[in-house]
Amino acid sequence: MTPTWLEHGHMTTPAGWRAGVAACGIKYTGRDDLSLLVSDTPCNAAAMFTTNKVQSAHIHYDRAVLARNTSAIRGVLINSGSANACTGEAGIATAQTLARATETTLAFPPDSVLVMSTGVIGMPLVVDQIAPGIAHAAQHLHPEDHSIPAARAIMTTDTYPKHCAVQVALSGGKPVHIGGVAKGSGMIHPNMATMLCMLTTDAAVTSDALNAALHYAVNHSFHCISVDGDTSTNDTVLLLANGQAANAPIGDIVSPDGQAFLAGVLKVCQRLAQEVARDGEGASHLVTITVEGAHDNADAHRAAMAVARSPLVKTAIFGADPNWGRIVCALGYSGAALDPERLTLSFGSIPVFANGVPLPFDEQAAHALLEAPDILITAHLGVGSGAATVWTCDFSYDYVKINAEYRS
Amino acid sequence: MTPTWLEHGHMTTPAGWRAGVAACGIKYTGRDDLSLLVSDTPCNAAAMFTTNKVQSAHIHYDRAVLARNTSAIRGVLINSGSANACTGEAGIATAQTLARATETTLAFPPDSVLVMSTGVIGMPLVVDQIAPGIAHAAQHLHPEDHSIPAARAIMTTDTYPKHCAVQVALSGGKPVHIGGVAKGSGMIHPNMATMLCMLTTDAAVTSDALNAALHYAVNHSFHCISVDGDTSTNDTVLLLANGQAANAPIGDIVSPDGQAFLAGVLKVCQRLAQEVARDGEGASHLVTITVEGAHDNADAHRAAMAVARSPLVKTAIFGADPNWGRIVCALGYSGAALDPERLTLSFGSIPVFANGVPLPFDEQAAHALLEAPDILITAHLGVGSGAATVWTCDFSYDYVKINAEYRS
Repeated sequence: MTPTWLEHGHMTTPAGWRAGVAACGIKYTGRDDLSLLVSDTPCNAAAMFTTNKVQSAHIHYDRAVLARNTSAIRGVLINSGSANACTGEAGIATAQTLARATETTLAFPPDSVLVMSTGVIGMPLVVDQIAPGIAHAAQHLHPEDHSIPAARAIMTTDTYPKHCAVQVALSGGKPVHIGGVAKGSGMIHPNMATMLCMLTTDAAVTSDALNAALHYAVNHSFHCISVDGDTSTNDTVLLLANGQAANAPIGDIVSPDGQAFLAGVLKVCQRLAQEVARDGEGASHLVTITVEGAHDNADAHRAAMAVARSPLVKTAIFGADPNWGRIVCALGYSGAALDPERLTLSFGSIPVFANGVPLPFDEQAAHALLEAPDILITAHLGVGSGAATVWTCDFSYDYVKINAEYRS
Repeated sequence: MTPTWLEHGHMTTPAGWRAGVAACGIKYTGRDDLSLLVSDTPCNAAAMFTTNKVQSAHIHYDRAVLARNTSAIRGVLINSGSANACTGEAGIATAQTLARATETTLAFPPDSVLVMSTGVIGMPLVVDQIAPGIAHAAQHLHPEDHSIPAARAIMTTDTYPKHCAVQVALSGGKPVHIGGVAKGSGMIHPNMATMLCMLTTDAAVTSDALNAALHYAVNHSFHCISVDGDTSTNDTVLLLANGQAANAPIGDIVSPDGQAFLAGVLKVCQRLAQEVARDGEGASHLVTITVEGAHDNADAHRAAMAVARSPLVKTAIFGADPNWGRIVCALGYSGAALDPERLTLSFGSIPVFANGVPLPFDEQAAHALLEAPDILITAHLGVGSGAATVWTCDFSYDYVKINAEYRS
């Protein structure tokens, strides 16, 4: 019952989904910056939003819609370039105007389209700029052709589009599909979900089960990554289920079908979260940090995230310097319980620290290991059986360049 | 009764203090890397150490000494190059051997000399390398000539020595003096005190009053700075009082003399903390962040430190980009209570955000303001009367360069 990858999978891989794109010139020129995702039939919906106290207008708007309707969502309009955050009541009115325009264009009822924004904070969204794009995208909806362009249109400083899909076999013999798209790549330390992620499925799943699956999957994926420690104002992940696979509806994630579906959602979320970390601003390494031997799983997560966030660890990895002292330091200040005399640490298969003292190791081999695109760091805190895995990236000159020059 | 700066003040400015230096070749060549600070008479002592669960051997050693003796400390031996952290029992034995060698050389009793180390984690301290340096430094102790060289000898990636001194008038007409030296400049997010700081005074102060003064001053200085968010394994601040000013002993910091003395300690600590932030690795700006209108002072501190730690804010300042959205974002995820609709934000004298919406401002003027060496950011959270000020620096290419190449 393991979910299987679908080659070139994307968010319109599940049945009944179509996407369209448009170039509105919101901030970027010469590229698409508007994505429209539409289901042929109404969807059950589950969403998670940032815990930042300052939240994008699209989050205020979507929360209000989802308070009224989680069973008949038809589509999502996503723009890049402007985050529509810190834009006050006017920003929320703009979000509503854009949603209504999309609903009218597609002859959908009110409150059936959600919106998402990503980009510069404080830059107003201009309705007149985007309205023609909505018409264009709506006229060119396609189940296949525009899905990857739609993943590309929501990028800001991302260097490549992030999308995937899985097939999940259910007990009745009906396969269902789960697809997703995400964008990073700065202001990434989700305390909810990374900036934007759209998950689609053709499975029939109740709203409650959808919510439970989303929370579990996000806690084990997007909540386990950090690029820069900055929790965005816009983080949103949305899971929409249109039921077109005509499976026996999943009403409980602890049922066999529920577990199979959950495994599929988790697989898609983890892949997308890893891609967001790998494509962090200026990054060239995906760093997987596993902490074991912690007091409990929460402590393991806390310790691993401290390492994932440490600028000193991340710059050392950029320099392929096996400077393990910085990792021990981050574990030490993380707040997690640990026994310095029983702490162990490895880079890949090379142990570098055990029982409170450094181990002799081949510096050249460790250096070579840290030059690989994928790096594993494993620590054992020596106090229990809690474990967690998180993902981060290195911290490079390009991170500074991208962020010192971003707005101008 | 305001403390007054003493021009070119340093840690041997108070009466009865001498310093010496030596070049031991611990890690650096062609420069001093050992400082010896000695009082002519026994001192009351107060110390604060890092909250990191992994602590340098010198902290284990000093804690043990101070548990036995806080009233007859005679000196401190400080090395740079190796942090003597993650070096196990052997590291603690080395700390003791070096302290004993210093005591023997100077004919001091056991447990009268403290030690401090700063530099690379996991690198052993070699007694045979340092012992000749102790003899050399002890033979060349001087109340004046070696104080600034001693401040220089404890530097790692610092670009200049940090030292100052004040004079404080007490009620009896006797002036007392407080001097200090500190070093930064990476792994700076003190949750106690920045890496190393030595404070000296000729005031007569009881150990209890000394402790109270140190805690207050550190909470309002070193606990208010961040360079990279990494809380070191070695953070130590030490305040030694030899009583040579022969003032009526200060037994209580709420007395008029106690308040005058506390103001002096605070002034020295704040100056040194600001210098550590200004000279953060790769930095070219000292950024002062004041948060007002918070629920309480602790919330104001929390909000200000989130801004101080944000790589996105710090890279924007490096680029002199008035990208205020990143500051609002950091305030929002700090955990501090705030009202997004009443939040205000200014760069220096330029208001950029108020009542939940951006204000029009002169981008060129704001850009010019952010090119100055000293930058002020002021936020009002709109929910109460709590306030706090913290200091940070920008995040530059050189931070990455220094830390990607540090060890090798």
